[in-house]
Amino acid sequence: MLSNEMMKHLKIKNPIIQAPMAGGITTSNLVAEVSNSGGLGMIGAGYQTPIQSREQIREIKQLTSNPFGINLFVPNEFNVTPDAVQSANQLLHTIRKRLNLDPTDSFDIPEYKTIFESFIEQVKVVIEENVSICSFTFGIPPQEVMDELKHHNITLIGTATTVREAVENEKAGMDMVVIQGSEAGGHRGNFINGHQESLVGLMSLIPQVVDNVSIPVIAAGGIMDGRGLMASLCLGAQGIQMGTAFLTCIESGAHKVHKEAILNADEDQTTFTRAFSGKWARGIKNKFIEDMLEHELAVPDFPVQNLLTQVIRKTCSGQNNQDFMSLWSGQSPRLAKSETVEILIKNILAEAENINKQSFSPK
Amino acid sequence: MLSNEMMKHLKIKNPIIQAPMAGGITTSNLVAEVSNSGGLGMIGAGYQTPIQSREQIREIKQLTSNPFGINLFVPNEFNVTPDAVQSANQLLHTIRKRLNLDPTDSFDIPEYKTIFESFIEQVKVVIEENVSICSFTFGIPPQEVMDELKHHNITLIGTATTVREAVENEKAGMDMVVIQGSEAGGHRGNFINGHQESLVGLMSLIPQVVDNVSIPVIAAGGIMDGRGLMASLCLGAQGIQMGTAFLTCIESGAHKVHKEAILNADEDQTTFTRAFSGKWARGIKNKFIEDMLEHELAVPDFPVQNLLTQVIRKTCSGQNNQDFMSLWSGQSPRLAKSETVEILIKNILAEAENINKQSFSPK
Repeated sequence: MLSNEMMKHLKIKNPIIQAPMAGGITTSNLVAEVSNSGGLGMIGAGYQTPIQSREQIREIKQLTSNPFGINLFVPNEFNVTPDAVQSANQLLHTIRKRLNLDPTDSFDIPEYKTIFESFIEQVKVVIEENVSICSFTFGIPPQEVMDELKHHNITLIGTATTVREAVENEKAGMDMVVIQGSEAGGHRGNFINGHQESLVGLMSLIPQVVDNVSIPVIAAGGIMDGRGLMASLCLGAQGIQMGTAFLTCIESGAHKVHKEAILNADEDQTTFTRAFSGKWARGIKNKFIEDMLEHELAVPDFPVQNLLTQVIRKTCSGQNNQDFMSLWSGQSPRLAKSETVEILIKNILAEAENINKQSFSPK
Repeated sequence: MLSNEMMKHLKIKNPIIQAPMAGGITTSNLVAEVSNSGGLGMIGAGYQTPIQSREQIREIKQLTSNPFGINLFVPNEFNVTPDAVQSANQLLHTIRKRLNLDPTDSFDIPEYKTIFESFIEQVKVVIEENVSICSFTFGIPPQEVMDELKHHNITLIGTATTVREAVENEKAGMDMVVIQGSEAGGHRGNFINGHQESLVGLMSLIPQVVDNVSIPVIAAGGIMDGRGLMASLCLGAQGIQMGTAFLTCIESGAHKVHKEAILNADEDQTTFTRAFSGKWARGIKNKFIEDMLEHELAVPDFPVQNLLTQVIRKTCSGQNNQDFMSLWSGQSPRLAKSETVEILIKNILAEAENINKQSFSPK
């Protein structure tokens, strides 16, 4: 029976973490079911207001008595001028017209200060609501935030895409680190390395990180079943974090069009784009990505571009039109299934058990 | 004790294949030592003349009585005009001057027909010299070539980067297929999918390919030690093919500057370029790659660009100058070591044995 530092620290029975996918995917039901099945459910709170996070935390506590966690986006500073927003908006005119939206949709450019204040509010909610596990994406929070969370005995999990980023997470005091391989769907978590440099496959990334940090390492990216779990453990990870595998589950709040797109996709149909949000992310190729291909380097940084495309994405969701939706997916869509969380986790464990029984001793 | 279809078919004791790296790396000593250590040594014959291949095959037979194999590049058609060559040559002027070379170096554009004829000659050598294993990169040979080799009971191994390419290899009659993950160093083996589409990490690629072909699958890309071997087996591969791990071995013919560059590199220092050869390949970033960055999409296809940069690469080798050499490497350079083939294989097996003993049963 497997037991390791990560599992003990997180108080979970199975080394399986549900990735904190932001934007309505991690319903209370999904999070609670993962925790009820012995894994770790995670709220993707990246786009939530502090009030929404508080409500969801309370809701999940009604549904499970097992530990669950929450993920926050660490705010990154960004530079943007009204002119830059206008030219980015210009690029979206044709799409807006096509969807019968006001082509000159305008909005107030958010201020970093406001975003950071909201982040601090969310941290307070995490503490006040006694969430025992908090993970971070897009960087490492300021030392005083780390100290405050540690003071309340909250387990802190960082995100890294390279050895260097993993080492920085350990130095900053993270209790463990999720390492995101190039296979992973959704937003890239790189915060020191550039986008291209940060695209390291898990077969290379896990052993190199494990050799250079002493905190537990959690592997993320393209892992969907017992084979991926066992491979990650062999490479030195203490657990896995799965996004796409949980996204297509019955309990997930992902749009049905998004789920269907993954269930019908092949491994060679995902690509990176920054056209949706201003941050690089992996998703299934669609019309929006293709239309924006030659402009994607020019669009404003996250979260400005994300706000610019918000109405378009929302309108398409309402129309079940996948052309302009963000269809985030890792590189293993052929392994995705439409099933309950309970069945998914049960099958992963059974498959891992089976593999574990086989003798792979090469001598 | 591990035994599988691939090992039986190849008549090898350990599921470890040495990648057929072309260009002088796979010395007879390297190939023979791998086979003598129970793995499969492979001649990288991609740039050899048929006469050179014949000589090396005979030499290796003096050094080992175990099976070894040979890899051939399947010729791809290419279009190139004298004008295109001239503008590509123009881009190299500054570099040639800097190296005191004739800046207007010229050469005859090779003809596809000649290259194909040489390929057929190499196939004849393989048959005449009774090499029992032949692998292919850059595509699938014409049916009559496949038939002829099969008629002589030669085991045929294809190369694929996606499920689709693996399926095509199986359909064409390959006995097994090497799948090249995005982690892999050197030239990309994609021949149906485009470059970007073909960049699938092994964690995703292995299980998806295994689910869709019935021939044995050999994993390649970033695998360097017993952890990578065990992970590949868990994911469903029957064996591994390692390039970088053998490249830095004592017996390898790689330039010492190349070996040193790998031994000193980190996982985030490799990148893709087509500036050296006209085909995308992964190597350690250096001055040439950076200088050519904005032009790389414009350079002529393989093998024309390869011929254009040949004198530059050769001159730099002679001067121990890594600035303009092709420093091919996979994404795990931190795991590379300078040791003998015997020690490398021994350590891999011992580490795999150890991992195999641990209980990873998650229930």
